[in-house]
Amino acid sequence: MAEQGPAVTAADFDRAVREAIDSKTKPVGALGRLETLAAQIARVQQSLVPTASRCKLTVFAGDHGIAAAGVSAYPREVTRQMLLNFLAEGAAANVIARTLGVKFALVDAGVAGPAVEHPGLVSRRIAGGTRNSVERPAMSEPQCEAALRAGREIGGERGHEAAAFGEMGIGNTSSASLVAAKLLGLPVAGLIGRGTGVDDAGLARKRHVLEAAAARTPPELGPHAALCEYGGFESVMLAGAVLGAAEAGKLVLVDGFIATVSALAAVRISPRVMGNLVFAHRSAESGHSVVLEALGADPLLDLDMRLGEGTGALLAWPLVQAAAAMLRDMASFESAGVSGQT
Amino acid sequence: MAEQGPAVTAADFDRAVREAIDSKTKPVGALGRLETLAAQIARVQQSLVPTASRCKLTVFAGDHGIAAAGVSAYPREVTRQMLLNFLAEGAAANVIARTLGVKFALVDAGVAGPAVEHPGLVSRRIAGGTRNSVERPAMSEPQCEAALRAGREIGGERGHEAAAFGEMGIGNTSSASLVAAKLLGLPVAGLIGRGTGVDDAGLARKRHVLEAAAARTPPELGPHAALCEYGGFESVMLAGAVLGAAEAGKLVLVDGFIATVSALAAVRISPRVMGNLVFAHRSAESGHSVVLEALGADPLLDLDMRLGEGTGALLAWPLVQAAAAMLRDMASFESAGVSGQT
Repeated sequence: MAEQGPAVTAADFDRAVREAIDSKTKPVGALGRLETLAAQIARVQQSLVPTASRCKLTVFAGDHGIAAAGVSAYPREVTRQMLLNFLAEGAAANVIARTLGVKFALVDAGVAGPAVEHPGLVSRRIAGGTRNSVERPAMSEPQCEAALRAGREIGGERGHEAAAFGEMGIGNTSSASLVAAKLLGLPVAGLIGRGTGVDDAGLARKRHVLEAAAARTPPELGPHAALCEYGGFESVMLAGAVLGAAEAGKLVLVDGFIATVSALAAVRISPRVMGNLVFAHRSAESGHSVVLEALGADPLLDLDMRLGEGTGALLAWPLVQAAAAMLRDMASFESAGVSGQT
Repeated sequence: MAEQGPAVTAADFDRAVREAIDSKTKPVGALGRLETLAAQIARVQQSLVPTASRCKLTVFAGDHGIAAAGVSAYPREVTRQMLLNFLAEGAAANVIARTLGVKFALVDAGVAGPAVEHPGLVSRRIAGGTRNSVERPAMSEPQCEAALRAGREIGGERGHEAAAFGEMGIGNTSSASLVAAKLLGLPVAGLIGRGTGVDDAGLARKRHVLEAAAARTPPELGPHAALCEYGGFESVMLAGAVLGAAEAGKLVLVDGFIATVSALAAVRISPRVMGNLVFAHRSAESGHSVVLEALGADPLLDLDMRLGEGTGALLAWPLVQAAAAMLRDMASFESAGVSGQT
């Protein structure tokens, strides 16, 4: 019989992590949230010498039937135009990913119009946009399952310790507001924001449209039902990617409002993914704070950003790298011969 | 006579920067504080295509006479021990700088005991520690001038667009509390925190000692007098480095409490340096917020950190890189053929 060490419980492991961090040459707790983050990375990787050398951002794009109801400041064509902008490496997410050494991938989850053929584009098209959820479910159950499955496969790819997920899709803050309202059993009015920047009249119209859409179904829905009824192909695929990445043992850098709603759906489907989520930033999109609070999450950054595309998630990557390096590479009081507290 | 273009006023330039940022493929304002930061970088570099490819962290170390009064949780020897830890690349600042691609330099501004000889150490020793400012000025005027001059030279070195400055010195939160109190004309009691982690009894003793030291001089002092009376060789040199770096047209990443007090002294000496300062993080050391408010500064990060060494400043560097890259490299609505708001 092979020799077996004593079982290490989660509490034992957490204590070992805490001791390792406290032995580093700094006052106890002086690195604040970097220490909490390091402990989370250690737990996810089950290692006292965690690594954070490779991160990949995957942006999912899709169109929304509800955009026809005039809920966005931009025309629906912008989803497709931005797809091309991503492929030309001109969007914010491209530029920030390149700057921070993060790999970039783009997935067509269901953009309206003919499929774009490009070597830089991963085609996982469910359909050419969802249906208008004011009138009927945004997608069928098989479509929802297919989007979750595709996301799970993409999220589960190997080769990087951390995955960031972003989204692009005109109308997708409206979709996310509806999904969040149904997951949390809250009136949708408290989850509506300006999205890409609708004015006061636009906001009133958006609220009217979203309340009509919400009235179609019971106040609270399970994750699959909420996603089928109101989700987007890109945001459902993103939820699947969160599941796949967490199941593969990766850290998941969670972006703003839409990505956090997808993460909430993923947590509702499989609560254990919560431990893998690093909440990157607090978006200026109203509604995000409601969803964060429901998750008990306090993001690392608060930079008044509201772009999506994974841009906020990207900015947390250097913090993850610094936290992992602290635990892995810093000297201890003992190894460095530094005196402790008197 | 050579042809001359029309004079570009500061307002013209700011307008051009704003237009450049607003032309990028994103809703106006959607990158929040990254946009404000990009505008600041553009102003400092007087360029609509700013660069942020090289950053250098310089850590200044020095000992404090006031440490003899028992104001720290650690013995004075720790300054020297940490100097050796920095040289062995085991301290937090080393590890985080390496992770984020920031060059690291260490300056002995006046550590007690015999001078350390090491190829990785820049020796600008003013003396082997300051005097105890409870009893007399921490340093002479010529020492203060020499420290400022050395800092100015170091800060003015070429080869990087951004400079981060850190400090190490047992007793230096006490010194910084006194300097801040005198620069702001406030009672020192409101600027005292736990430093490296004194307990309640230690905090009471620290307050007693600092009030005695503050009572020696008038409630408000000019920057040179405040630095002579209560400064440390490392923190005065840091103030000089802020001046030198700003005069050389660099961005200065301002760390926590002690570095911000040095930056405040620099701003009092030369108000125009303010435009070059990027306030990196809000330290957990109480007193920092008071000094930030006096400067009208709202830092980028709030991670409950209180280590010093420039660790907070380092974490803002990726944000500076991302902001500069956004302005320099993102496509415009026109160049990418993306439709604007309807």
